[in-house]
Amino acid sequence: MSPPDVLEKLVSLCKRRGFIFQSSEIYGGTGSVWDYGPLGVELKRNIKDRWWNAMVRARDDIEGLDAAILMHPRVWEASEHVANFTDPLVDCGNCKKRFRADDPRIKGTPGTPDGQCPACGTKGKLSEPRLFNLMFKTFMGPVEDSAAVVYLRPETAQGIYVNFLNVQGSTRQRVPFGIAQIGKAFRNEITPGNFIFRTREFEQMEMQFFVDPAATAPATTDMEWFEYWKAQRLEWHRALGLSPDRLQFHQHSKEELAHYARAAFDIQFDFGGTLGFQEVEGVHHRGDFDLSRHQQFSGKKLEYIDQVTNRRYLPFIIETSVGADRAMLAVLVNGYREETVEGEDEGRTVLGLAAAIAPIKAGVFPLVKKDGMPEFAEKLTTELRKRFPVFYDESGAIGRRYRRQDEVGTPFCVTVDGQTTQDQTVTIRDRDTLKQERVAADRVGDWIAPRVTA
Amino acid sequence: MSPPDVLEKLVSLCKRRGFIFQSSEIYGGTGSVWDYGPLGVELKRNIKDRWWNAMVRARDDIEGLDAAILMHPRVWEASEHVANFTDPLVDCGNCKKRFRADDPRIKGTPGTPDGQCPACGTKGKLSEPRLFNLMFKTFMGPVEDSAAVVYLRPETAQGIYVNFLNVQGSTRQRVPFGIAQIGKAFRNEITPGNFIFRTREFEQMEMQFFVDPAATAPATTDMEWFEYWKAQRLEWHRALGLSPDRLQFHQHSKEELAHYARAAFDIQFDFGGTLGFQEVEGVHHRGDFDLSRHQQFSGKKLEYIDQVTNRRYLPFIIETSVGADRAMLAVLVNGYREETVEGEDEGRTVLGLAAAIAPIKAGVFPLVKKDGMPEFAEKLTTELRKRFPVFYDESGAIGRRYRRQDEVGTPFCVTVDGQTTQDQTVTIRDRDTLKQERVAADRVGDWIAPRVTA
Repeated sequence: MSPPDVLEKLVSLCKRRGFIFQSSEIYGGTGSVWDYGPLGVELKRNIKDRWWNAMVRARDDIEGLDAAILMHPRVWEASEHVANFTDPLVDCGNCKKRFRADDPRIKGTPGTPDGQCPACGTKGKLSEPRLFNLMFKTFMGPVEDSAAVVYLRPETAQGIYVNFLNVQGSTRQRVPFGIAQIGKAFRNEITPGNFIFRTREFEQMEMQFFVDPAATAPATTDMEWFEYWKAQRLEWHRALGLSPDRLQFHQHSKEELAHYARAAFDIQFDFGGTLGFQEVEGVHHRGDFDLSRHQQFSGKKLEYIDQVTNRRYLPFIIETSVGADRAMLAVLVNGYREETVEGEDEGRTVLGLAAAIAPIKAGVFPLVKKDGMPEFAEKLTTELRKRFPVFYDESGAIGRRYRRQDEVGTPFCVTVDGQTTQDQTVTIRDRDTLKQERVAADRVGDWIAPRVTA
Repeated sequence: MSPPDVLEKLVSLCKRRGFIFQSSEIYGGTGSVWDYGPLGVELKRNIKDRWWNAMVRARDDIEGLDAAILMHPRVWEASEHVANFTDPLVDCGNCKKRFRADDPRIKGTPGTPDGQCPACGTKGKLSEPRLFNLMFKTFMGPVEDSAAVVYLRPETAQGIYVNFLNVQGSTRQRVPFGIAQIGKAFRNEITPGNFIFRTREFEQMEMQFFVDPAATAPATTDMEWFEYWKAQRLEWHRALGLSPDRLQFHQHSKEELAHYARAAFDIQFDFGGTLGFQEVEGVHHRGDFDLSRHQQFSGKKLEYIDQVTNRRYLPFIIETSVGADRAMLAVLVNGYREETVEGEDEGRTVLGLAAAIAPIKAGVFPLVKKDGMPEFAEKLTTELRKRFPVFYDESGAIGRRYRRQDEVGTPFCVTVDGQTTQDQTVTIRDRDTLKQERVAADRVGDWIAPRVTA
């Protein structure tokens, strides 16, 4: 059974504490688009930076890329998005509303006399399903005609494929190697929802790994690379702090598998409630579909030339693709808990974020607003801020200040108290164990720093 | 006189070495849209991270934000973009081509018998100038009707204004404070160009600082904040390594000043050649125009309430707005040089990037491919990569390997030579002085690290 649904509570916490706001909220919002507030932008940056460091900077066999959102329209013909990236929709001939053909509120069969509109209730006026493309369309240049149609990319991957030879040539990388990219993508979803789980504007972290389709032992084969990346990527999510028992692989069945895919697994996270296990990342063996399509549609050779054997070939591609917003939602859901504290009347809400991705690493408090404590605490704040993000707070009871940091995931709270002025020590409180330790004030940075980076 | 124009040489270097590629190049390119390659994405990240650290993480009076690209369409009515963000265009009634009304190739006066089309040469068929909006338009939801029109944001600033109270409320910040954001924006420019100087898809780094319009001495007044931010931002560009003599302020004249602006200065950089001094950043005093417009159009009170005096007011806004792509072009132009080296026949091309933003901090080379040098150098590479980006290179003559790093701006090259195996020392060569220093191999990281961060 899935853990309880905490989405509604998270939406409220995220707005109140500045993680996530509804986009254009003062105008009534933009449909399923969200803005990241001060704490949300830091949490998301930390997640993205961890991915970039693990996938690009720590390795010598993966290169970074940042391709544009607006691409040549032929790209989306080659990728089959123009033809196939569609949802079936039905119209009501009476009220003119549109619905997904599989909308559970529709009664009867659309296109027949018993098909009934879920909005106005009229029978027999629902059209047969028609395909609706999910790409956002816009026009480049001054003339709005079909020649100038461009799309907002529905995925970042194509930017990598079309740059394959540019990257390989400029870096002198040899297959096997990868190209990684973080960037926005857009899908005109008909039924987005569940907070930032499915949105119309979202961010992807994608890595495409190019391998020799003919490699055999003792070289690493394409399927061995596929298994390698499955394992690597699962481990990455675990290291982000997600509970191992909320993570699982889902293998695509023959029916789910894209026609060109040789194998595909999703890494699923249990979001709880009715949402349950859902994809946060896909690890897909795409064969040579992408490069061969772009070679065909562009008329440009995209073959890799092996410098040793002089063999020319289109590499196979192993893709790893994470939704950055979804990964963030997973760590929020995973970390959210309400608990009672022994000896206290009031319970507390905790965001149990891994210290390495927490937006604030330490709260710094003077116990009371007198006896030089605020001055001491402010000075300490300035020192610590040079090393990691800290938050100074002197307002309200100390217990309330602890609670405020607990619910935004701050792993440590440093308190300047009466003893500090005597022996220059402060207390450091651990968010999860609630234990306090006395540490010399000039050692606090060295004590916290290794515990909040990884 | 401006320095020589190096743009053409930069375009070539940037493609060859993987800084910047034309978007969708294999399909003939997308008009004035560019992709950042492996070295370009790191250089741009370093510039953006420096901005974020200086503007957000190092300060306690500025909060970060990441608002979405797709906003409610009313936002752009409130901001006057729907009405006024336009360029005047003329059509040729004969060949149907369109031109900017101020296109210098147009002869005569459009809309009169002597107006002559620059493309087909027909006289008297050029229309009178008509206004063309520069915002990219798209449609959200399944129905393409006017109710669902949304725009790709032409600037990131509005995302900050509409979130003013969300950010202030969730962080408990008090005026004066700022909100900062890095993000993409889009403009359907008619005449983009000059490489990444003016593009249709670009990235902005904007900070909006909210101040009390009634503040008087001893409090800091709005105009004092304006002067403060002018000085801060100029210093930031200098610290990026831009030559002080290539930077200047340009004060907006009465004619240039937006109708709501109380003062506006651009920070200009001398891009050389005919381009000369051009804006890289704007520091603008926007008064209370933005918040009052959004208050009016949304019907929601956007007033700040001073907790001490209980006074309610709309703050004034001091805006600082940098183009990230333009800042990157400035450091590339500023750093590019070709020079002869004493005692060598071949000249060299150097990208004199500040070490703190260079994409690669050190090249690591074995002098020759034998005697254990490659193994030693590879081990050193692995160690150094844990601390900063390094590049291992064993192919070709050592001089050529130095040159390859020079032209991508790598500040240091570490060479493992015959002496290394005897005394465990390596040489470290400085990109600019060409001086070499012998350093113990296990001290190389500590030697380089403080020189490549700032």
